[in-house]
Amino acid sequence: MRKIEHIGIAVNDLEASNLIFEKLLGVPPYKFEEVESEGVTTSFFNVGPNKIELLAATNPESPIAKFIEKKGEGIHHIAFDVEDIISEIARLKKEGFVVLNEVPKKGADNKLVAFLHPKSTNGVLIELCQEIR
Amino acid sequence: MRKIEHIGIAVNDLEASNLIFEKLLGVPPYKFEEVESEGVTTSFFNVGPNKIELLAATNPESPIAKFIEKKGEGIHHIAFDVEDIISEIARLKKEGFVVLNEVPKKGADNKLVAFLHPKSTNGVLIELCQEIR
Repeated sequence: MRKIEHIGIAVNDLEASNLIFEKLLGVPPYKFEEVESEGVTTSFFNVGPNKIELLAATNPESPIAKFIEKKGEGIHHIAFDVEDIISEIARLKKEGFVVLNEVPKKGADNKLVAFLHPKSTNGVLIELCQEIR
Repeated sequence: MRKIEHIGIAVNDLEASNLIFEKLLGVPPYKFEEVESEGVTTSFFNVGPNKIELLAATNPESPIAKFIEKKGEGIHHIAFDVEDIISEIARLKKEGFVVLNEVPKKGADNKLVAFLHPKSTNGVLIELCQEIR
C-alpha cells in the first residue's frame, strides 16, 4: 500500500455535491466518468497526492443507491494505491482477508481495482487500485 | 487542503484491530495515544504520505462509542492537512460550512484540529488539522 489513492463518497445529487466539494477543497473536479457496470456516475477532485471521488447512483440497483438507502450519504470506501494488484491480492488472501474480486476489474480513472469484504476489515470497504500502464 | 492527513476508523477493540490493519498495511502502528478529552484511545499507521488512525472508546459517553452504537464500526472521519487552520476556518465559514470548533483544539498526533458538521458536507465528518510547530 503506497498511499491513500482516493476516498469514495456516496452522494444523492452529484451536481449539488460537486459544488460543495469544490468550495471545501478549493478546486473544481478534474474529471467526470460514468461506470456503467457499477451503475454510478463519478467526479474526481485532486487533494495533493490524493483524490476525492464522489459517486452517485444511476439506477436503483446500483451499490451506491443501496448504500445510501441503508446508511445515508457519506464515506463509502477507502482506495489504496498498490504497485502490483495481482501480488497484493495474493498476499491479502493469504493473510485471511476476503477478496471480492480475485481477478481485478476495470474501475474508474484508468485503474484496475479489487475490493475487500468489510467484514474482514472492521466494517471498512477497502479498494485496491493499480494504475493501468 | 494540502492532502488527506488521515482517515479515522472507529473500532470496538483497538488491540484486535491493530493486528488487522498491520496485516492490511504491512506495517505496525507507529504511535499509540489516548485523547482523554474525547474519551478515545488511538493508534496511527503510516501509508506513504497519509495515515490511518484507529479510534476506540474509553467510556460509553465517548463520541466513538455513540458512533459505533448508531452506525457500527467503520470510517468515522476524513482529516485534511492545512497550512493555516485559522485562515482555513475563516474561509470555510464564509463558504457556508458549519465549523464545530471556531477555536481549534489540541488533537492527537501533535495537531491543532477543528471539525465541520457533516450536515454541510454530505454526511461526511471532516477534520482540518495543522501540525503544531
